[in-house]
Amino acid sequence: MVLNLTTTSLLVLNKIRSKMYKIAFDINGNDNGINSALAATKLFLKTNKNYAIILVGPKAEIEKYYGKNMPENLEIIDNSSVPSDVKNIRQSLRENTSMNVALDLVANKKADAVLSSGDSGTYLAAATFKVKRLEGISRAAFMPLMPTITGRKFLLLDVGANLETTSDYLVEWTKIANSFDRVLLKNLAPRCALINIGTEDYKGTELIKEANNKLKEQHQLNYIGFQEPRDLLNGVCDVAVIDGYGGNLILKSLEGAILSFKNLLTSKIKLKPIRKLGYLLARGAFKDVAETLDYRNVGAAWIAGVNGVVIKSHGSSDEKAYYGALNQIKLALDNHILSEVKKDLNINEE
Amino acid sequence: MVLNLTTTSLLVLNKIRSKMYKIAFDINGNDNGINSALAATKLFLKTNKNYAIILVGPKAEIEKYYGKNMPENLEIIDNSSVPSDVKNIRQSLRENTSMNVALDLVANKKADAVLSSGDSGTYLAAATFKVKRLEGISRAAFMPLMPTITGRKFLLLDVGANLETTSDYLVEWTKIANSFDRVLLKNLAPRCALINIGTEDYKGTELIKEANNKLKEQHQLNYIGFQEPRDLLNGVCDVAVIDGYGGNLILKSLEGAILSFKNLLTSKIKLKPIRKLGYLLARGAFKDVAETLDYRNVGAAWIAGVNGVVIKSHGSSDEKAYYGALNQIKLALDNHILSEVKKDLNINEE
Repeated sequence: MVLNLTTTSLLVLNKIRSKMYKIAFDINGNDNGINSALAATKLFLKTNKNYAIILVGPKAEIEKYYGKNMPENLEIIDNSSVPSDVKNIRQSLRENTSMNVALDLVANKKADAVLSSGDSGTYLAAATFKVKRLEGISRAAFMPLMPTITGRKFLLLDVGANLETTSDYLVEWTKIANSFDRVLLKNLAPRCALINIGTEDYKGTELIKEANNKLKEQHQLNYIGFQEPRDLLNGVCDVAVIDGYGGNLILKSLEGAILSFKNLLTSKIKLKPIRKLGYLLARGAFKDVAETLDYRNVGAAWIAGVNGVVIKSHGSSDEKAYYGALNQIKLALDNHILSEVKKDLNINEE
Repeated sequence: MVLNLTTTSLLVLNKIRSKMYKIAFDINGNDNGINSALAATKLFLKTNKNYAIILVGPKAEIEKYYGKNMPENLEIIDNSSVPSDVKNIRQSLRENTSMNVALDLVANKKADAVLSSGDSGTYLAAATFKVKRLEGISRAAFMPLMPTITGRKFLLLDVGANLETTSDYLVEWTKIANSFDRVLLKNLAPRCALINIGTEDYKGTELIKEANNKLKEQHQLNYIGFQEPRDLLNGVCDVAVIDGYGGNLILKSLEGAILSFKNLLTSKIKLKPIRKLGYLLARGAFKDVAETLDYRNVGAAWIAGVNGVVIKSHGSSDEKAYYGALNQIKLALDNHILSEVKKDLNINEE
């Protein structure tokens, strides 16, 4: 899978240790156009002078947007192409799309990280194909950083990349997410859990029971056993691991429930003037809640398991979501995420 | 599967058409004791004179609770036993538990419906073993009635009974839930959906894509295709069908997100006096929301697919939850649910 590991890793390591980082940013594929990506880019570059961004997108439009205020450290690669048929992944891998160009930049060490909000399935396949998987890792997984009501965050994986899994995939993902959590969230011993339909050891599929037994033997992990999805937003764990089918259902249920609850409350408040007045007085609380559970942080999901810093933004990301994704990349690069993951997985970087 | 269908069904039919209904109520197995069950029983019998309830539970305690105010139409079968080991279902089926006694009452036509809040897995197995499955139905499923923000409700199944399914199970469950929805919620053409990780036909597992194709051919159903869990609480469908693993994860995610959101908002309101004042003025809105999304309605789940009216209450049901379950049974019996389901499934009742 990983060819020329020694040379490749050495180059990566040198990049990571240098002070200037480059992010390849595929800005096509957002449902609402490119403006949010451009605004976030500008904001990010303004405060991060040791970062450069290579925008892969429609050059004329980008130049028109910035006009005379072109940010420093910005490069543009002109490309307006998105996959012609997202259902045909094999074909998409061969096309000259902005996504492929951005991934190639990382694969060829011309950039240190890559961000895209293009089609998830295509991005996953292309990242795996071009950047390759980490040594000993069977599958790459989508891993968003999720908010909780405690203010702490947790990593959830896999969210939809692998609908079918083996117990080994789950074990591998736990290890990778554990490293990400240590590095990005500064938890010394992240509480790692398998997400299941019950907390008792005898509950769930044979597959997850097998993974449970295997994880209990991984003594370098702070493995806390099964947890139920009902406790996730209460911050019951730092790393939540599940198959991609279950993870996707959970993410969409949590997001949906919070949005529905919010909409219902808003509509009930609007029913009477006295309630509207009450809302005005209490709105600080609503703002706090919105800030704590802001799902724009969730817009971005790491592609965990590939040999590079690869992150995916939601297809309808706004400026805040993109800015959050760029800052996640910064946190990852500044803290040498890839070296740390490889160290934890006993992958030799020399 | 269904032995002596002709005689059995005739007896059931006669029962249903008669005016007096009997509910067998296993009151053991609630984490908080029997008082909630007894309070709900009293309240229900007070306003439903054509109903009798057979309580299966600790007779002395029941008599002590009611004292001189023993409700009319109440029978007691003295039994304080719960399964000695819920993990050993085969053994539980042979034990003289209140759950088994209550189910036998329905199986032997001594009662028209049965309610229990004992262990889910045991109840499902015992109901299938004693009451039997409907003709042509492969597996029984847990089917709660779920709230939405529109005030309408929807049926979700399977919630945890069958972690692994076939496309045929999903098709069978859709048909049964469709009948329940017509009867209980008075929808003329319930919108039936498969819950999937995406709405596009090409998304999801092979199994669910197969079920999707099969359901498109069921022209007697108002099948609306795939829906995502994020839209469930917005009332996007009347019948939501998924495997028991996914359904359980969704239910627990929705419940958990709403509770977490509520707790977070409460804690943020308590931070400042001005917010507390605002809350007091707007609390009507909060009450409305709580009423609309009250998960005590969800406490009860039908066991769909068995040849009887069998419902399960949550293991920590309070009076309101039990009362809700008894009223669901009433709605089902008053509207001849079993006959309607059999008619829709083309099962001959003569």
